[in-house]
Amino acid sequence: MIRFERVAVIGVGLIGGSFALALKAAKRCGHVAGIGRGAANLQVAKDRGIIDSIAADVSGADLVLVATPVAQYPQVLAAVAAKLKSSAIVTDAGSTKRDVVAAARAALGGKISQFVPAHPIAGAEKSGAAAATGDLFKGRRVVLAPLPENPAHSVQAVEEAWLACGARVSRMSAEEHDAVFAAVSHLPHLLAYALVHEFAGRGNSAQLFGYAAGGFRDFTRIASSHPEMWRDICVANRGPLLAELDRYAEKLRMLRPLLERGDGAALEALFAEARAARERWLNGEVE
Amino acid sequence: MIRFERVAVIGVGLIGGSFALALKAAKRCGHVAGIGRGAANLQVAKDRGIIDSIAADVSGADLVLVATPVAQYPQVLAAVAAKLKSSAIVTDAGSTKRDVVAAARAALGGKISQFVPAHPIAGAEKSGAAAATGDLFKGRRVVLAPLPENPAHSVQAVEEAWLACGARVSRMSAEEHDAVFAAVSHLPHLLAYALVHEFAGRGNSAQLFGYAAGGFRDFTRIASSHPEMWRDICVANRGPLLAELDRYAEKLRMLRPLLERGDGAALEALFAEARAARERWLNGEVE
Repeated sequence: MIRFERVAVIGVGLIGGSFALALKAAKRCGHVAGIGRGAANLQVAKDRGIIDSIAADVSGADLVLVATPVAQYPQVLAAVAAKLKSSAIVTDAGSTKRDVVAAARAALGGKISQFVPAHPIAGAEKSGAAAATGDLFKGRRVVLAPLPENPAHSVQAVEEAWLACGARVSRMSAEEHDAVFAAVSHLPHLLAYALVHEFAGRGNSAQLFGYAAGGFRDFTRIASSHPEMWRDICVANRGPLLAELDRYAEKLRMLRPLLERGDGAALEALFAEARAARERWLNGEVE
Repeated sequence: MIRFERVAVIGVGLIGGSFALALKAAKRCGHVAGIGRGAANLQVAKDRGIIDSIAADVSGADLVLVATPVAQYPQVLAAVAAKLKSSAIVTDAGSTKRDVVAAARAALGGKISQFVPAHPIAGAEKSGAAAATGDLFKGRRVVLAPLPENPAHSVQAVEEAWLACGARVSRMSAEEHDAVFAAVSHLPHLLAYALVHEFAGRGNSAQLFGYAAGGFRDFTRIASSHPEMWRDICVANRGPLLAELDRYAEKLRMLRPLLERGDGAALEALFAEARAARERWLNGEVE
């Protein structure tokens, strides 16, 4: 059973803080040092027992979790590289992986073998150390995107840490990860933002929103997501996301004539197939 | 205070049954007769006290609510016309209005002035008399789409009935109604069905659904809606819906170059504007 004597969490927000709490609850770590730019947030984390100390750098850490916005990775990883001990493992929680790997290669240089890229799939409606909970990752998926340079035991150690947090861990390449999430996560966000923006810009927007109901509310919930975070994700993953956007636009083009000629049978078949697929998914029959 | 001595509800499902229960609770009606094709469902309605009797037709009714699927309106309204007394008012609960008005004109002929088209905006996750509740319409919107032929007192009577159910009633033309709901309801359903269908048809669909999380679940909730009902809505309202689909496709075409050139500032601005509009809506600041 792996145990990390000293853990450093960079960015003690919902994800970083919940990871620390879960690891502590599972008794898989000794001291947790918190690193970040927000002094008030770090104090909240310390007061809540999420971290044991506020630190300036990763000196002495056996495991480092980078849980800041991905846009900060170049700076953050350069600082990590300067103080990282040779036996330490670095992992992260970024929503995209190819850009993270590129940033890590640039910043870590010869220490790249110590970096095991990861992506915990956990909601972020709330944020900050105040929102962290030890059970955030229970039953959630965590994707590891190991590098060819990673020693097997390092990947195994990161996997064990996430398993200890209650997560279901799987592995895929950074390329596969970014393609999958472009489809099931990034595209829906883009579509929801686009729909709300479209209606907000119309002359009768007050009327439109006035008659929007529960279906619209759920469909657009992800359009209340953090604009900066989604800007970064969309820019970082724009290649796969463009491919998904084009496929979806093509799908709508294919659907259009069914509607135009009032082809009820074809529409009903499409709707029924979609509903059946969604029900199978909700029932856990797909995976 | 208006009171209907005898009410006939055709189609005693979630909507029709809840209307009867709410009207009874408000003491706005005497006898409620239930009419429908499903004998078992009508018995449930009678056992639950939603209706007082099971009837074959609308004979003697002062108020008739047509709450069947819209596709059944031609037959249902023809049967209504045959037995309708001259002082009676007929209203409905259909999700589209131009096609309903056309069907009513065809079926009711000279009695068209007795028909006041309406659309209660209430969710339909569950269905049947078993799901009916007296508070379904509390705080919900009901749109009346009065005809030029309707006497003012008839429109007023239908409005009072819905107000008695706790609803917020407004009026617009059938054309305006269908255009508004094509945007805020019908288009999102089509988009959600299309996305789920797209992923379900891919070679790696098990992988895609395997990594879909909470955002995808909410975005696609309406893709679990009833295929036949949404076939009818899409076909009946295909003109306005096609216009909305084309505007949305144009929106995506406009968004595409922002993504392609990695224009983070423009994407962030769009996302932030969408989020702000949605928050204003959720806070009740739009209407």
